[in-house]
Amino acid sequence: MGSSGSQTELLAEWSTLWVERRGAAAVIWLNRPERLNAFTYAMRDDLVAAFDATDADDSIRAVVITGTGRAFCAGADLEAGGDTFLPESGAGSLSGEGIPPDSGGTTSLRVFASRKPVIVAVNGPSAGVGVTMTLPADVRIASDDAKFAFVFTRRGLVPEACSSWFLPRIVGMATALRWTMSGKTVQASEALDAGLVSEVVPKAQVLDRALAIAEEFADGTSPVSVALTRQLLWQMAAADSPQRAHRVESRLLVERGQSGDVREGVASFLEKRPPAFVDRVSAHAADFDWDR
Amino acid sequence: MGSSGSQTELLAEWSTLWVERRGAAAVIWLNRPERLNAFTYAMRDDLVAAFDATDADDSIRAVVITGTGRAFCAGADLEAGGDTFLPESGAGSLSGEGIPPDSGGTTSLRVFASRKPVIVAVNGPSAGVGVTMTLPADVRIASDDAKFAFVFTRRGLVPEACSSWFLPRIVGMATALRWTMSGKTVQASEALDAGLVSEVVPKAQVLDRALAIAEEFADGTSPVSVALTRQLLWQMAAADSPQRAHRVESRLLVERGQSGDVREGVASFLEKRPPAFVDRVSAHAADFDWDR
Amino acid sequence: MGSSGSQTELLAEWSTLWVERRGAAAVIWLNRPERLNAFTYAMRDDLVAAFDATDADDSIRAVVITGTGRAFCAGADLEAGGDTFLPESGAGSLSGEGIPPDSGGTTSLRVFASRKPVIVAVNGPSAGVGVTMTLPADVRIASDDAKFAFVFTRRGLVPEACSSWFLPRIVGMATALRWTMSGKTVQASEALDAGLVSEVVPKAQVLDRALAIAEEFADGTSPVSVALTRQLLWQMAAADSPQRAHRVESRLLVERGQSGDVREGVASFLEKRPPAFVDRVSAHAADFDWDR
Repeated sequence: MGSSGSQTELLAEWSTLWVERRGAAAVIWLNRPERLNAFTYAMRDDLVAAFDATDADDSIRAVVITGTGRAFCAGADLEAGGDTFLPESGAGSLSGEGIPPDSGGTTSLRVFASRKPVIVAVNGPSAGVGVTMTLPADVRIASDDAKFAFVFTRRGLVPEACSSWFLPRIVGMATALRWTMSGKTVQASEALDAGLVSEVVPKAQVLDRALAIAEEFADGTSPVSVALTRQLLWQMAAADSPQRAHRVESRLLVERGQSGDVREGVASFLEKRPPAFVDRVSAHAADFDWDR
Repeated sequence: MGSSGSQTELLAEWSTLWVERRGAAAVIWLNRPERLNAFTYAMRDDLVAAFDATDADDSIRAVVITGTGRAFCAGADLEAGGDTFLPESGAGSLSGEGIPPDSGGTTSLRVFASRKPVIVAVNGPSAGVGVTMTLPADVRIASDDAKFAFVFTRRGLVPEACSSWFLPRIVGMATALRWTMSGKTVQASEALDAGLVSEVVPKAQVLDRALAIAEEFADGTSPVSVALTRQLLWQMAAADSPQRAHRVESRLLVERGQSGDVREGVASFLEKRPPAFVDRVSAHAADFDWDR
Repeated sequence: MGSSGSQTELLAEWSTLWVERRGAAAVIWLNRPERLNAFTYAMRDDLVAAFDATDADDSIRAVVITGTGRAFCAGADLEAGGDTFLPESGAGSLSGEGIPPDSGGTTSLRVFASRKPVIVAVNGPSAGVGVTMTLPADVRIASDDAKFAFVFTRRGLVPEACSSWFLPRIVGMATALRWTMSGKTVQASEALDAGLVSEVVPKAQVLDRALAIAEEFADGTSPVSVALTRQLLWQMAAADSPQRAHRVESRLLVERGQSGDVREGVASFLEKRPPAFVDRVSAHAADFDWDR
């Protein structure tokens, strides 16, 4: 893992993407290069299925999302022209209001719920939902030719994919308002300055660099601790008080404080050796009740 | 719009300020230069009336606030000396508690509710409510002689105008605590570093630069999309979860996805021509229910 | 105050720390240098008692926390090995759930509730709860040899001491996720870039610099205004809307607007002389009801 030479194995394939193993990471390749990986309802369904698969596989320690071809994702596929944004037929109803759920938001909420760290390797231009669905990822890095087009107000729309909640929490309120209201296309260097991405690298290196970051999360850490930490921080970003954090953390500490992993974590530290954690995400990080 | 030479027209005048059209922007001039534009109850009422006017006028695409004379706003007018901050007589009661609403907060909440982007051109020193009432604006820029005096703890008061909510969301918690507790006067360059303002320009250019930013929001965007985007981001800054953002965005997308503006937005993009949006803010962005 | 030569007086001493007066500041010295000031249940109890004392003493205007010896705080004392994180016996139950409260969180919530500004002088390496219990302080500065080890996922644990709520509000979501999930040790310079600390100074100067910052909060300000401002900003960081800030601020302004301090604050300003505030924190900032 972490170099182009590491083991590669096809794990799964759907119509709009495939998933391959690269060391301890799973790489999701958006794969509609003839349409610049434009987003469709099928891609939403495939992304949800891919994250279900990576969550269930305890050998996967991190997820990388990238795209085939020269673009990362051109946004919603406009093949249907002016009908593109009509309500999705047969999509079901959100909250019993007869409102079909925004497909970008369904994707974002699935990324949000991932039990593994998510790194986006933005390998080229992205637009619309191609940007906003990446906001619940943990790390975004960009190739030097990447662009981020917040096109919504230029198409008669509004920001979606839960970006109205995520974007200000990543780049700050002033920047989020300015980019979205003006419909701005942000270059890689400006995205770096604003914190939308944490690194900009030459195009040929963007995947390897993402795999190296995936390794940071996997090396010497308890998979269960990483999964619970990820969910804990996001849940508390939406929490109304530090007192609530105190309650949730106290419950997690009771559970983890008696685990095999904490005994191994302390023992390996005191013995100055690498830890060998044994608890499994699928068994020990799956059913914590965040709403209590 | 965007240059000193653009069309200028007086739109309205009140005792403490006037409003003029500059291209597609409305410029609100605080106008008590003999008192350094110090804030009064009358100025609160006039600002509320001015924003009611700019919201109702579909030809206005953005609002700029600036001041006449050498200062932007010296804070609360202290003509009444130690009685200045006694409860306002006849001001009504907030939440049925018999508490008169803070006049700065009433102003801030009116700026917060604006349907048009708001840009503040801080043309010189500002203090107290002269700083805090600008925090719900979308962009603040400053002349190089501007200062921002967070004087509250030096007068025996506390921060107001909803700044306890807005300021940490703009400059971060650590900076907000430091500035307000110490009663600091922040110079333009430090305000820039902290993100309180996004640009510092020579005094003679501050209005023109604000008008150029107003143009960014107006050029090629749907007025209804801009209005809804502004309110969406601020509402979700106060939302407790991305799931709530998903519900609100889904409802907005159903409405906007069937609009004339989205058909024009997609068609103009595919035809590589500028869009000609027709939906009107006063008709299509006025009554969305943010509380559902 | 503010220099090594200022008055020093022992105010109180407990088993794990002592408190001394340095001008208008109280300095809490963590004092288990033979264990690198590692955190114990006794240290939690002593910190709570120390803050009770500084809150009750109206002559104290700010609190500084630092450590004796070469480290600031090595995190939880691991003397008990793998049993270290077993639930604390006899610790009581949080929210009637039979869950003992996390001892780091109890400490953090006591710092959070301080009526005086809190400055942490990180005099050397810190780890785990040695980092997270400092997050509700107002200012953190570091000696150039300081490190911040977010070790939780490397020990089979999760972040605690309410850090899941505080950390993203200080360094942003992306940085908070990256540091905690990877179990990173952050050097002083990276902590400065991320905003975890506001200054890095040579080791010999870190206490004097903290005392100078304490002076910023004490010089020319109303102690009651500072106490209420501190609590106001933190409460509104957890508030769901600017409308709620408007209600709370309006209530505070009615109270403070009629106070002796505001009359003195305005009079001293108009007379161009330093203010002499008389209201006392123990009497006038103690029982404001933040939940209304």
